[in-house]
Amino acid sequence: MRGVCVVGTAMSRFGKMSESARESMTMTSMKAIEDAGLSPGDIGAAFYSNAFGVAERQLHIGPLINSALGIGDRPSIAIESACSSSSAAINEAYAHIAAGLEDICLVAGGEKLSHLSTMEATTYFAMGSDYTYEASNGVTFPGLYASMAVAHMNRYGTTQEMLASVAIKNHSNALLNPLAHLRKKLTMEAYKESPVVAYPLHLYDCCPFSDGSAAVVLASEEKARELKDEIVRIEASERAGTAATLQDRRDMTGIEGAAVASKRAFARAGMDAAEVDVAEVHDCFTIAEIMAIEDIGFFRKGEGGRASVEGETAIGGRIPVNPSGGLKGKGHPVSATGAAQFHELYEQLLGKAGRRQVDGAEVALAHNIGATGGSCTVHILRRRR
Amino acid sequence: MRGVCVVGTAMSRFGKMSESARESMTMTSMKAIEDAGLSPGDIGAAFYSNAFGVAERQLHIGPLINSALGIGDRPSIAIESACSSSSAAINEAYAHIAAGLEDICLVAGGEKLSHLSTMEATTYFAMGSDYTYEASNGVTFPGLYASMAVAHMNRYGTTQEMLASVAIKNHSNALLNPLAHLRKKLTMEAYKESPVVAYPLHLYDCCPFSDGSAAVVLASEEKARELKDEIVRIEASERAGTAATLQDRRDMTGIEGAAVASKRAFARAGMDAAEVDVAEVHDCFTIAEIMAIEDIGFFRKGEGGRASVEGETAIGGRIPVNPSGGLKGKGHPVSATGAAQFHELYEQLLGKAGRRQVDGAEVALAHNIGATGGSCTVHILRRRR
Repeated sequence: MRGVCVVGTAMSRFGKMSESARESMTMTSMKAIEDAGLSPGDIGAAFYSNAFGVAERQLHIGPLINSALGIGDRPSIAIESACSSSSAAINEAYAHIAAGLEDICLVAGGEKLSHLSTMEATTYFAMGSDYTYEASNGVTFPGLYASMAVAHMNRYGTTQEMLASVAIKNHSNALLNPLAHLRKKLTMEAYKESPVVAYPLHLYDCCPFSDGSAAVVLASEEKARELKDEIVRIEASERAGTAATLQDRRDMTGIEGAAVASKRAFARAGMDAAEVDVAEVHDCFTIAEIMAIEDIGFFRKGEGGRASVEGETAIGGRIPVNPSGGLKGKGHPVSATGAAQFHELYEQLLGKAGRRQVDGAEVALAHNIGATGGSCTVHILRRRR
Repeated sequence: MRGVCVVGTAMSRFGKMSESARESMTMTSMKAIEDAGLSPGDIGAAFYSNAFGVAERQLHIGPLINSALGIGDRPSIAIESACSSSSAAINEAYAHIAAGLEDICLVAGGEKLSHLSTMEATTYFAMGSDYTYEASNGVTFPGLYASMAVAHMNRYGTTQEMLASVAIKNHSNALLNPLAHLRKKLTMEAYKESPVVAYPLHLYDCCPFSDGSAAVVLASEEKARELKDEIVRIEASERAGTAATLQDRRDMTGIEGAAVASKRAFARAGMDAAEVDVAEVHDCFTIAEIMAIEDIGFFRKGEGGRASVEGETAIGGRIPVNPSGGLKGKGHPVSATGAAQFHELYEQLLGKAGRRQVDGAEVALAHNIGATGGSCTVHILRRRR
């Protein structure tokens, strides 16, 4: 199996955009290709994600973007894994390069939903849950994550202040990120005054609905060494699942698939959680970040809330988590999120993250889950000479 | 790179079904796993396709099917490539096994649209074309393929009778397939009397709207040899693209990506078109089969219509094409089609195709395209001892 490296990344400004997902993904793809020092003709195959393309009446987006890039002759597919779509797409590109089927692949994810009403957008999002057993009975993602938060509070004594600390940190990090959706300092007072969406989750526990796109160019290690002096290698690209609905799970205080994928990723990379310098994790809701840092193994089960409130996950803390602002602050254009995590970590590993820079970051971890964790993807990246 | 084999397949009855895509895909997946002599626990990763899941308000279908199969802990993704979705999914599973990342993978595709009105269903299908430049201007797939048919007629003298001969053959083959959607003999008279949908395409030049599902289990060659006395190996799994819209193409009398993917597939398999014993090709419209048999290289450019009318593609002919009945007769539940082609070819290679059996078939080819050929996938399968 061949080594696979990240050689270029890009992301659009997240928030409300006037362009379509296809336009945004095309522009961001071009930027990632330029970041890699390549031209579109160097791309062997493209892997796109645009889970809610139907909201713009567009499926089969690959040939459209490829054609706009001038490479209509190259193969493309679209990959959907709910909120972890572009991480899953990265895993597919990784497999093609690892197998020796391709040398250089483009991955891009994007979403545009801001032209819909909140009700329409929520209806699309709910399609990521089990429609028969969850969505059609009126359960939404805030409700599902609220159930997990209550279970976590009951078992481990996690508090509202601990949840709030995640939101406050990620808003604070997003203020340092010029491409972030929410660039507004959040105080404990404002958090507490914000409306309850689904107890115990306040408005500020929830990530925003964002438009945007992100792209990543992957290459075989051999190609990467031709292109760059320093390479960023994917040491592990692991996926796992969890029973689809909450009622089918033994435990609601964590995401089993995320724990399994993390364990496999560390085994493949030959390292452990203590060696990670910086991480981007899936914080669609504040409780999701607390569960993520426990599932990955940065903190013991039940310690995630305490660690957050004590600043251990801040930039400068023991393990900086979501320096980009995360889904909570940077925004969450569903299919862009996994690729956007790669963009942040690639910049961090190259020392190009500006005011968000984690000093001397050499090993990075990306954790991205679909829906309530039915799909989980964990990547480990390492900068090497 | 490791060898990859087909070890089990299944398909549902195509036509109008009462169950949902997720239910049908779950049942068909279980049958394919049983056909392989395996149990669900043997599956390492699953690759699903359900391009029009939104029509049932369901995305992120993987964890639902995995959970129903009792393997909620396994990773899954959904792959969309318009009408070639499950062929693209097979290519992804192939890459994972070839790379050594997985030993046994499940691929399943399914679709349910019969609960929609024809207008609603057509709207979904049109999302596979370029919405901005084609669908939103009122161009539908019958219109696009009609344009290609006119170009083919003008350049090569292809006739209405030649188009009709494809439909008559595929209806005749479908009569031998108990799982086919259209099981009705078609005469030249009935063809000519049927309404014109878009000149020169009559109603009987068009495949039906079908519900249904199909599934394939792939394994490494090593695993396959443990499971089976005779193996069916994937000698090539190649994909290519074509400029997305017809107006961007130099030539409308063939699909460039299909010709490129075919050429690459024969190169990888180390054989040529003359060595293929049986083929399933993408005949969403009769003209599509004529172009396909030329693009693959079974017949010289412009000779496809003549070959069809002279019976060279019939069961017993020089190269039997679509013995299953094809999309035209067997039906075309969009995301099921690629996997269903594999089902037919696997049965053919094992001599289990009943009254449709092509005598002594040893090498088979599957040709599946998305939309008007923006995405093209070609697989070559060979039975080996």
